[in-house]
Parts: sequence; C-alpha cells; structure tokens
Amino acid sequence: MKDRSKNYKEIETVRKNNFSTKRVTVKKLEEILYKSFSVLDHGFVRVIDYMGDDSSVVQAARVSYGKGTKKLNQDKSLINYLISHRHSTPFEMNEIKFHIKLPIFVARQWIRHRTANVNEYSARYSILDKEFYLPKNQDLKPQSKVNNQGRSGELSSNEINYYSEVLRENSKKGFENYSKLLNEDENGNVLDTTKSGLARELSRMTLPLNAYTQWYWKIDLHNLMHFLSLRFDAHAQYEIRVYAEVMMKILKKWVPLSYDAFISNRLDALTISSQGIQYLKSLIHGKKNESTNISKRELENIKKIFNC
Amino acid sequence: MKDRSKNYKEIETVRKNNFSTKRVTVKKLEEILYKSFSVLDHGFVRVIDYMGDDSSVVQAARVSYGKGTKKLNQDKSLINYLISHRHSTPFEMNEIKFHIKLPIFVARQWIRHRTANVNEYSARYSILDKEFYLPKNQDLKPQSKVNNQGRSGELSSNEINYYSEVLRENSKKGFENYSKLLNEDENGNVLDTTKSGLARELSRMTLPLNAYTQWYWKIDLHNLMHFLSLRFDAHAQYEIRVYAEVMMKILKKWVPLSYDAFISNRLDALTISSQGIQYLKSLIHGKKNESTNISKRELENIKKIFNC
Amino acid sequence: MKDRSKNYKEIETVRKNNFSTKRVTVKKLEEILYKSFSVLDHGFVRVIDYMGDDSSVVQAARVSYGKGTKKLNQDKSLINYLISHRHSTPFEMNEIKFHIKLPIFVARQWIRHRTANVNEYSARYSILDKEFYLPKNQDLKPQSKVNNQGRSGELSSNEINYYSEVLRENSKKGFENYSKLLNEDENGNVLDTTKSGLARELSRMTLPLNAYTQWYWKIDLHNLMHFLSLRFDAHAQYEIRVYAEVMMKILKKWVPLSYDAFISNRLDALTISSQGIQYLKSLIHGKKNESTNISKRELENIKKIFNC
Amino acid sequence: MKDRSKNYKEIETVRKNNFSTKRVTVKKLEEILYKSFSVLDHGFVRVIDYMGDDSSVVQAARVSYGKGTKKLNQDKSLINYLISHRHSTPFEMNEIKFHIKLPIFVARQWIRHRTANVNEYSARYSILDKEFYLPKNQDLKPQSKVNNQGRSGELSSNEINYYSEVLRENSKKGFENYSKLLNEDENGNVLDTTKSGLARELSRMTLPLNAYTQWYWKIDLHNLMHFLSLRFDAHAQYEIRVYAEVMMKILKKWVPLSYDAFISNRLDALTISSQGIQYLKSLIHGKKNESTNISKRELENIKKIFNC
Repeated sequence: MKDRSKNYKEIETVRKNNFSTKRVTVKKLEEILYKSFSVLDHGFVRVIDYMGDDSSVVQAARVSYGKGTKKLNQDKSLINYLISHRHSTPFEMNEIKFHIKLPIFVARQWIRHRTANVNEYSARYSILDKEFYLPKNQDLKPQSKVNNQGRSGELSSNEINYYSEVLRENSKKGFENYSKLLNEDENGNVLDTTKSGLARELSRMTLPLNAYTQWYWKIDLHNLMHFLSLRFDAHAQYEIRVYAEVMMKILKKWVPLSYDAFISNRLDALTISSQGIQYLKSLIHGKKNESTNISKRELENIKKIFNC
Repeated sequence: MKDRSKNYKEIETVRKNNFSTKRVTVKKLEEILYKSFSVLDHGFVRVIDYMGDDSSVVQAARVSYGKGTKKLNQDKSLINYLISHRHSTPFEMNEIKFHIKLPIFVARQWIRHRTANVNEYSARYSILDKEFYLPKNQDLKPQSKVNNQGRSGELSSNEINYYSEVLRENSKKGFENYSKLLNEDENGNVLDTTKSGLARELSRMTLPLNAYTQWYWKIDLHNLMHFLSLRFDAHAQYEIRVYAEVMMKILKKWVPLSYDAFISNRLDALTISSQGIQYLKSLIHGKKNESTNISKRELENIKKIFNC
Repeated sequence: MKDRSKNYKEIETVRKNNFSTKRVTVKKLEEILYKSFSVLDHGFVRVIDYMGDDSSVVQAARVSYGKGTKKLNQDKSLINYLISHRHSTPFEMNEIKFHIKLPIFVARQWIRHRTANVNEYSARYSILDKEFYLPKNQDLKPQSKVNNQGRSGELSSNEINYYSEVLRENSKKGFENYSKLLNEDENGNVLDTTKSGLARELSRMTLPLNAYTQWYWKIDLHNLMHFLSLRFDAHAQYEIRVYAEVMMKILKKWVPLSYDAFISNRLDALTISSQGIQYLKSLIHGKKNESTNISKRELENIKKIFNC
Repeated sequence: MKDRSKNYKEIETVRKNNFSTKRVTVKKLEEILYKSFSVLDHGFVRVIDYMGDDSSVVQAARVSYGKGTKKLNQDKSLINYLISHRHSTPFEMNEIKFHIKLPIFVARQWIRHRTANVNEYSARYSILDKEFYLPKNQDLKPQSKVNNQGRSGELSSNEINYYSEVLRENSKKGFENYSKLLNEDENGNVLDTTKSGLARELSRMTLPLNAYTQWYWKIDLHNLMHFLSLRFDAHAQYEIRVYAEVMMKILKKWVPLSYDAFISNRLDALTISSQGIQYLKSLIHGKKNESTNISKRELENIKKIFNC
C-alpha cells in the first residue's frame, strides 16, 4: 500500500504510541490505527481515533433496561434486536474519527450527511495539491438508459481513450490556471516576480471537481451505519462506494457483532410495502394470478429476490 | 432586476396566487414572494415560502412563561431580551425557504451550516447550465498579507486583465470539455452521432468550482441569524457575503423587530474577554498604563472600537 | 369536543383570521387551524401553523432532478418512490407547528425526538394547573408477561377500583403539597399570610409524573413521519399513541399523498432480514422444512403476517 | 466520597483495566475514569469514556489551515483564537461520555440540550429506586422578587422545617403509592399475593418530580462547553448548576487549555450591545452624561462590571 499521507509524518510517528488506558479498547482496530488505506488513485481513509466497542452498545442499552433486562443477556441477540427494531440510541454511544482524502465531487455528496463533524482543508488558507481523480478505463461508462442517475454499459476503446484524454487535459489545464492565478507553482516557487498573485480564495475557482480535498470526519456508530447503508449500496456512485467499502472493513474490525447485525438486518434486508406483502401472500398460498396494485418497480424487485 | 429564473416559469405563475389563510401573514414578505433578487453575475435568492412572524416568536416565548409573564408585555423588549440572553428556542419556531443559485465554491462553504434543509440540483440526473462566476475587475484582489484567509490590496490593471482572461478561458474550456464528455452541447444536441457520451455523474468532473449550482434551502429564524452573523461579517468571503446582504434585507421585511434586536445585540455587539474587561476597567478608572495580559489582537480591536 | 384551551382565548380569536397569501395553502388544514382536539382526560393537540403541502415535496425533489426528470411526472408515484427509497430531504421542506397539552411522563418520552423545536410551559416561571391524567378503568392493566415494557391482560374490578383510588389520591395529595409549598391555592390566593412561599422552581418537585404540561412543538414532515412510525406503533405506550392517532388524522388532511405513501411503505410495510428472505424463499419454492437460522422472533412474525 | 453506584459493580471492576492503546490519552482523566462524584443527596457524575484531548482540537483546526498555518504554531493561542472567534468545529472532534444520576425535574431541563446522545433508565422496563431529592435547609428559599424564574432571600426556620417536612412526606407517600400500584416493595417482595400489580409504565405516574433517574449522556466538547455556559451560570437553577460544577472540574482535567480559553472568552466574558458600546465610549472619553438608548438592564450590568 502506497503511503498517501506524506504530509502527515507527525501523525505517522504516533503509530508508535503505546499508552496505558482504562478505556474500552479494540485490539483489531488498534492494529490499523492511523494507517492509510488507499482509495481511487490519490485518496485514502485512515482511522485517527475511536470510542467504544460492541460492549459499549450493550452497556448503553442496559442502562435503559435496568433491572428488567435479565432475559436479554446475550450481547449478540441484544444487538440484533436493537438494529432490527431501529433502536438507534445505544449505537450513538460509539464514535469514530477518520482522516479522508477524496475528490471534491465526492466530498459534495458526502457532506450531505449532516450528522457528522467535519474539518476540511481550506483552500482559502492553503494551496491544494496537484492531484486529480482520473478514472481507470474500466470505470468510464456511458449514461445508464434505465437509471437517470447512474452509468452502465460499455464504451468502445476509442471512446475510452478520447474521454480519458479530455479528463487528463482538463485537470492539467485547471491546475496550470490555478498556478497562474496564484503566481506560484506546485512547489511554492513564484512564477513571475513582477506580478502579485490573485488571492487563494479566488484562484481556487479554476480547479475542476475532480481535484482532491481532505478532511477529518467524525461520526457515531448509528450514523456511520446509516451512511454506509446509502453509500455501500449498488445505486451509490462508484467513486463514493469504494470509500464505503474500505469503511465496511474497518467497521468489521471495530464492532464485529454490530457489523453482522447490520448486514443481516439492514444491508441484506428487504422492506416490502403493504402491496408487496399482499402479493407475496397470494404467491405463498398459490394464488399466483391474483390482481394486486403492487408497483412495477417493487414487483420486479421481489421477483428477482425471491426468484419467482 | 434581470430575471434569472427562466427555467422556473411554473414558479412565476404562482406569483399571482391569492389564497385565503388563517395563518400569520407578513405583508411585506408577501410582496416579494417568489421574486428573484440578483446576486453576483448569474446567481439569485428568492423566498419560496415562510412560516411565522415577530409575533410568533413572542407567542412561543410566552408559552414558556405562562401566567408569570405579565411584566414582559412589550414585544419589542421581549425580543431584545431573548436575543441578548441567547434564548434561541422561540426563534426556532419560524421558518423560511429560499431558492438560491450560487457558484459551487460558495455552495461548499454554505453547506457547512448543517442546521438547514437542502435539496440541490443534481448533476448526476441533469446537465448544468453554461454559467460561471467571473468576478468584476474591482473584486479581483491579491492575497491579504495579514489575513491568511482573505484578499486585500489592489492589482494593476495589467494583472487584472490577465487574471480575468485566465478565469474566462478556464471556464470556457471546462464547459467545452463537459460537452465533449456528455457528447451533447448546451442545447441538448448530440455532438458526434457515432459516439456514446460519458455518464453525467463522471462528465461533471471537468466543471470548475466557479460553475453555478442551485438549491432549495430552508432554515429556522434562529439558525438563519446564526448563518448571517458569520456570513454577513467583514471576514466572510465577498462572494458569500453578497448573498447574506440580500438575505438581511429579506430578514428586515419578514421580522423587523427581530432584525433590529439582531443588529444591536449580535452583529454590532462586541464580546470582550475577561482580560479585555480588566483592560477597559483600568482605562475607565484612568489607570491607562497598567499591565494586563490581554492579547494583541483583542487590544487592537478594543482600541479601534472605543477609539482610544 | 370540549374546549381545553380556556387560557388561550387570544389564540381562538385568530380562528377568525382571513388573510390573503401567495403561499401554498391547504384548505382542509385551514379548516381545523387552531382548533383543539381532545386527547386523554385533559390533553389536546392543535395545529398552530404549517408550511407547504404535497406539491412542495414534489417541487423540492424536482429541484434535485432538474431537466432529467421528465419521466417522473406523476406526483403520486414520485412521492411513493421518495418514501420507499428513504429519500428524506424533500419531506424536510414542509413544517408543522402544534400546541400540545400532555402528561409529564408522556412529555418525557416525546422529547427524546430531538429533531423538533420545543417551547415548554415553565414551572419555574408559572404555576401548573390542577390537572392530572387519571386513566379510564379500561386502560388500567397489569404488567405484560411477554413484553417487558408494556401492559396486557385484565385486572379485576376490585383491583381497578383500588388502583384508581391510589392514583386519584396521589394526584390530589401532590397538588395539595404543591399549594402548601407555593403558599398559594389554585386560584392564586395566599394560603397563610404570615408565611413566604417556597420558590416555584422547588415547589414543583411535589408534582407527580401524571401532572399535565404543555408546549409548542414544531417539526418537519420527514421527522413527523418518523415520530409517528414509532409512536403510532402497537408497541408504543397507549398514552402517547393516542396523541399519534390524532396527528395521523391531521397528517391526512395536510398531505394526503404523502400520508398514503407513508402508510403503504412504512407503517404497513415489513422489513425482512436476510435470514427471513431465505426462509420465505424456501417457503415459496415449496421447501418448507429447510433449516434456516432465522430468529424465533422473526419467524413468528412472518408466520403471522403471511398466515403460513 | 460515598460511592453511589452500588448497582454498577461491573463498571467498578473496569477501574482496574489496563489496556495498551495508540490513541491520544489524558493521564489526569484516566485517574478518575469510572469514579463517581457525588452531587446533591443521591446523585452522581462519572466519566465512562472519552475521545481526544487539547492536541486533537489543534490537529483538527490545522487540517483546515493546511500549509498556510505556520504562524499559528502555538497551541494555546490557537485554542484561544478558535474559542474567541466561535470556530466550533475543531472542538466537535472530542467526545466525552458520562453516567449521571439526577432528579427528574433536573433531567427535564437537561434534556433540552438536543445535541447530545442519551440512554436513560426506563421506568417502563424497570423499577426506580426509593431515592428522592430533599434539599438541604440552606437551599430552601422563597420566590425571587426580581427574577421570575429564580429563588432568593431567606425563609424562617419555621418555614424551612414546614416545607422540608412537606417535601419528605410527599416523597414518602409517592413511593408508597408506587409500591401499592406495582404490588411490590422496594426489595421486590410482593405486597398482596391475591393481587396483580399495575403495569410499570402506569405505576410510575405516582412518582414526584424529585425522584431520581439516571442516564448515559455523551456530548462533544463544543456542545459540552455550550451546555456549561448555560448551566454553570448564576441564573441556572441551583440543582443543575451543581452538576455543571462537577463537570467543570472534569473539563479542566481533560482539556486544560480549552478550559482556560473557555473561562476567559466565554464564562467570564461580556457581550456588549451596540448601545452599550456607545455608552462605554462616552464614558471613556469623559462624556458621562450623554444620553443613550441603552436598556436599563444592560446599563446596570455594565455599571456593576466596570464599577462605574
């Protein structure tokens, strides 16, 4: 794994930290603490800090249940119960803090999740790196014909080469213009000593949406799972889904019981409308041809899932 | 005022609406409902809907005070009291909904205010207009030497011409490349009938940060004032401050008493640290040269404000 | 309907309001604006203000979809799609404001929904009314044997009489002690002119949890539906469910399309875990006896719903 | 310090935990982790977990500033700057989790702070302890004559004895009735074997507002300081202020630099309105008798603070 955090040497040194704590600690997460996991061509995800583990969820739930809980004494089944009944508050008791590098257009989707804390690198204060997301050939696809907000199908290699080149050229040009406005190259050298540069807060306007930014992003376990349920989904844009994939692996290391319950009861679960229930009922009782006002979309989905 | 909402004819027709309601209604706001106010070169702000007025704030506060409130019987002084004591909940009882068109780099600052509701135009679904923010000459300034995140001073007309041209060229190029990837021009005509376009969610990556986006943005009165206290401020970037200026005028029409109290007790108010209080105290009591550990920044600010 | 808002004459006069507005207006909701609907023995729910209707949800969604939306041109199916895919932001664009009177123990459950705005009658400022929730005989039930947090089964009429009497006596005593501490009866007359009363903020400590309080409560449509999905549920405590029932009727008047979609896709929908899907699949394909690791709870639920 | 967590033996054993972690660790906070600090007669505050320290605030701020920050290289002055300019996001990067036992009327004020996570002991599931807040004699005071929501002045010892007795009697009676309804005494023994008890969710209605409840309460550093700025204030009710006092001591152990900045720039700071600034200005420039439209309340406050 290429290290993409060259500017964060000071963080890397803390990888050698070894403190004594009375706090709940997760060994598997400690092993990867501060490590950066590569995403896309220049992005990464790294865990900076965390609070709590599976037992903290259970503990919080048991404060609520007090003396009356003796029957719910298996952590695993309690966690399953909590997730399947959407009792979210015990999961809010855990927190995780990430350092993430990501293209700006991905950051714009990501920030719509308002229940997180964010500190983003500011292009008013500082100069952005010369790094742009350039998709691999296999990820360049035409507009989907069925999904208004997605891509699907294949492009010819001619088309791929052409679009690749346009993207590369556009990124290069955008950064050149950024440098011209700043009057400063990527290494901080002044371009034209007779000129004053334009303010950073204006110069950044030339950067295209595939430029990379970075931020600290902190979220509680409940809201992380909500984020992942939307962004790990097949309908999410590929470029954000790959971040969700890395975070799923981290989630598994952090809270394995919650992770399993989340998969079974959320990611791989199915919500059926009242019309869908009627349809399935007549199917089970062998009345296949009964009319029902189930929507076409749901009907197709049910047929696919239940293979009928 | 140039109308910038050509695509929103359906909204304009509702300007002729005339419904009967029992709800609290604000005449001055009704007069400008749905109207678009120009901001920057292609942006606008328009009020789409609202709930409550100054009396709604008072009413909400009086639920809390119940029978015990007889002394607080002047709305104006009650509103002043609430704002100066940071009793925010009565102001949360009013809502306003805007339709806003703004450059993407402004939208990126704006969205950091998480206590609002947002629906943004999606470039995964739809194609963005060929509109880019190009600053007026007078707004092109060099990096401030004292403020790491601002601009100040002047550029030569040579520099201005050069930077203007770079920005214009960059925007033009960005949109050209966007069209190439979509394989579609700004009027929806296919560019090359032998090619499939690249998916919209990828094509948008060529657009620079000065491209315009738009959204519906809804916020309660308390959080609107918080937003304005940050964005109407002299330290806010010019390009977001001009939006705040328009919204200040709208605020005044909507809730004139709250507006006045907000100006006196927030915008034009001053918070002095305990060290600042000590400093001012010795000043008032004629002990000008007493040493104090007030910070340099605060000292300068106090000297400027109190002209001493 | 008994009028429970005798102290709010000033609000009742606004029932005769007749203003002209350009805003989206809902006739059926206007008809009941400010009216109080009785709940329990002394409680009520009344709508004080609102913003938006079904068309506002659609409009907000279409900002997102922009030009690409031509296919989604039926409001009803769009709203269904939004709810079933948990696209919540368009529903956040509508707001409703209630005035509610409710027992304190109900208020304590209610306030856990943090995404609302609240102004509550303050017992530090004001004196609470002599009103306590005393359940009807039919609502007095023993602790459920299967549900740790509910009631079920029947009590003997002896038991009912006894428990009723304890509750009545306890409420009476609590208010008597409240009056003693305040040194003031319910009509504001001083009890003992030789004594100073105890501060209101302390005197209130004698009041039992079935005393009534009241508040203004404002919430957006998305969060209102979330609240109702939890509180209109069969597992919610009866005393909060009856408030949810009244609010369901109000929801239907306000946004009939959203209401229908909410019923089909949320209230009457079913979420099945991955294990549940496996179970149903083998049922449909006639492999009834296949082993699966579905939980006992879910198995029973599926059997009940699909009658199999 | 009397240990008030007898039911939480399992938590006490974790006091002996000694894990190795790479996470930022605060020695002074570790020393008191899980320890309960007494508040009022039966309440307590204990820290259960935490994330981050002063350096985490600085680190988060510096992500924003990136390369441009070289000048802000002293942590202390950076933290001061952040607090005095209300840059809240870096403080949101730290979290702390408390276990708190508190009277219900205090819990009702406390829960109004919506930006925290809560898991409360549920009286639907479990039976509350026989513990009631009974104020010390010195804390029993009459209604304030100037502050509608506070107490001030003194009561005679006669009055004190009388009011104490009413409170004690009311609490005793409330618990007796609770036991009667549950048909179970405080030790879990059935009172009348011929009777079924009333459901817990109904029985709890007899409990007065000075009964104790408990919860886990988690909050980020920014919102904790906001909570403390309101609840450590002289105008806060005594019974919540004593909790804030304990939390202030914990804050100091956890983040000493943030604590100092918070005191100087928030707790001991003063916000002056534009009218107040005018008044002070004329005072400094020796024009004492100039008329100004400063409010009476602010005038008195300024006179007191500046001793003029």
